[in-house]
Amino acid sequence: MTTRVRIVGTGLIGTSLGIALVRAGYAVSLADPSPTAVALARDLGAGSVATPDEPPPDVVVVAAPPDVAGSVVARELADWPQAVVTDVASVKVAVLEDVRRRGADLRRYVGSHPMAGRERSGAVAARGDLFDGRAWVVVPSPESSAEATALTRELATAAGGTVRTMSPREHDAAVAVVSHVPQIASSLVAGRLRDVPDEAVALSGQGIRDVTRVAASDPQLWTQILAGNAAAVAQVLEQLHAELGSVIEALHALAEGDGLGAREILARTVAHGNAGHARIPGKHGAAPTSYDVVVVLVPDQPGELGRLLHDVGDAGVNLEDLHLEHGLGQPFGLAEISVLPAVAERLADELVARGWRLHG
Amino acid sequence: MTTRVRIVGTGLIGTSLGIALVRAGYAVSLADPSPTAVALARDLGAGSVATPDEPPPDVVVVAAPPDVAGSVVARELADWPQAVVTDVASVKVAVLEDVRRRGADLRRYVGSHPMAGRERSGAVAARGDLFDGRAWVVVPSPESSAEATALTRELATAAGGTVRTMSPREHDAAVAVVSHVPQIASSLVAGRLRDVPDEAVALSGQGIRDVTRVAASDPQLWTQILAGNAAAVAQVLEQLHAELGSVIEALHALAEGDGLGAREILARTVAHGNAGHARIPGKHGAAPTSYDVVVVLVPDQPGELGRLLHDVGDAGVNLEDLHLEHGLGQPFGLAEISVLPAVAERLADELVARGWRLHG
Repeated sequence: MTTRVRIVGTGLIGTSLGIALVRAGYAVSLADPSPTAVALARDLGAGSVATPDEPPPDVVVVAAPPDVAGSVVARELADWPQAVVTDVASVKVAVLEDVRRRGADLRRYVGSHPMAGRERSGAVAARGDLFDGRAWVVVPSPESSAEATALTRELATAAGGTVRTMSPREHDAAVAVVSHVPQIASSLVAGRLRDVPDEAVALSGQGIRDVTRVAASDPQLWTQILAGNAAAVAQVLEQLHAELGSVIEALHALAEGDGLGAREILARTVAHGNAGHARIPGKHGAAPTSYDVVVVLVPDQPGELGRLLHDVGDAGVNLEDLHLEHGLGQPFGLAEISVLPAVAERLADELVARGWRLHG
Repeated sequence: MTTRVRIVGTGLIGTSLGIALVRAGYAVSLADPSPTAVALARDLGAGSVATPDEPPPDVVVVAAPPDVAGSVVARELADWPQAVVTDVASVKVAVLEDVRRRGADLRRYVGSHPMAGRERSGAVAARGDLFDGRAWVVVPSPESSAEATALTRELATAAGGTVRTMSPREHDAAVAVVSHVPQIASSLVAGRLRDVPDEAVALSGQGIRDVTRVAASDPQLWTQILAGNAAAVAQVLEQLHAELGSVIEALHALAEGDGLGAREILARTVAHGNAGHARIPGKHGAAPTSYDVVVVLVPDQPGELGRLLHDVGDAGVNLEDLHLEHGLGQPFGLAEISVLPAVAERLADELVARGWRLHG
């Protein structure tokens, strides 16, 4: 028996999910306030356009913007009294509270958060493999039935996600630290660049580029996300605000005198950052591995980087990570190749033998 | 006539500079408090070990840690009354003030800051091409003679650097914004990860990885840098602290009520970040170009990434940037290939024709 899925909202996430589920053999119908958007999603292979007389769905996925997700979930729970309803908003407590406030049947509601986004939005940017290998957090409420939770997990797995289960509060506290607070820090650091002369901005190196990459994100979407997780984000930011205050005090003490004890505050701040950074897992969800980095000078011409990595492959070495850095004003880049320590020396030797110039 | 250069301090920067200048035809002598360090630098080709009876240098480069740079500069100015003296510390006002306070001859002193560092330190990590294509800021004081400034610029260029000239105050204000404040923000965001459960850290995606990459930096070195630029860093951090306070207030207003006006503060914060981020120059010092990104699914096996980039090269397309992202728990990665918009479609077609699966 084919599982029937109704997707409400055919933006990037809804359309990508439709494509993935159709491929996985589900019967998918699509609804959206915009007839154009839903027709486009259909044309992209995300399912059929929902009709008034279609059979009732087994699962409804609400892929609406965070600030309306709760009301749409409540309406769908009422419209389809046999269906499990989930949503994909990136905040979970606010959506659950909204659904509860509307008196909906919470046994059939289970929240979701697929950790997959793109810089681009809308159905045109949709891909059936958007969720492949990404974490998909399934977020049951205390009222959610075991069957509803199981069906939501099944759907997430079918879409390609790696399922993790958390409570709404755990989820919101986690994304506050690993996503929402980094976004605000990045935006604030980048915002400081508005006021400085061109010559100062010209000294920007890889450090500030990395710190501010997510500062290019969409203000409207992020306002909804931050507003939807306001309490959890505020809590983390308050700790950060207090620590930043201590750093500023220490800097003033150093600027105006010998700053007894001030250096210890600065050193501790950087050391705490070391400790936190070391907890971020490496690829494949494994514990972070310490890789050796082989740095190679790559002429900035078509094919050169390809030739280099072809040579790496020929050497039978597996790349763990790769970062390309361009020097200011130079016609070459630095390719930083991370490999397991055991093979680093052999790789370096093989590359030199093939005529590459190493840089580190 | 060969220019004679004396390098005081044979760590990463001093030794790399020696190697570069020897290659450029300069006569380099090396001094360091540690006889072992100076012998190692000599063995690496950075110059000869300084002797008491050697002829006086034309230029002295002080490559000592930031907190002793000023005293070493003053001593060298006194020891070599005909020589120009420069230093390479990453803060400039504090070093100049220290030199001035010691009553040294400021006409012959010109500060330097080569924007080149590495995660590793010490002579063993030295490379003669460390400065190739990196910005090298030459920082004359009001007292510096035109001849001293010209000789310092010549040396920086000979070492491979791209010379920029700034006043000490301009330099320190610039690096506060583009380097020191991003470091503190990154450390503070990473520090918040110490207190959260493993399941929360497991949700870390590319955003927090980028924001916290520099949080792995050395606490001792950064304490010296921050202490040496305390006033300029404090000034920028105070603005950031105030803005962060407004964000927290806005979040509280949203968590506890309808938060009239609060959303506008959040949206403006992210929008200001957009504007600042857009000012960061692209590669080769040019204005930022908007690249198209072609995303390709790459099996996590030796040689696959090499084969992909070989195919990119075969297509005659020049890679502008490359980022490799690994999915959690998946045996493949996503290669994000940035290219000029004019060639993106052709590249995508050629890759598909060669059997690659595109993802974006």
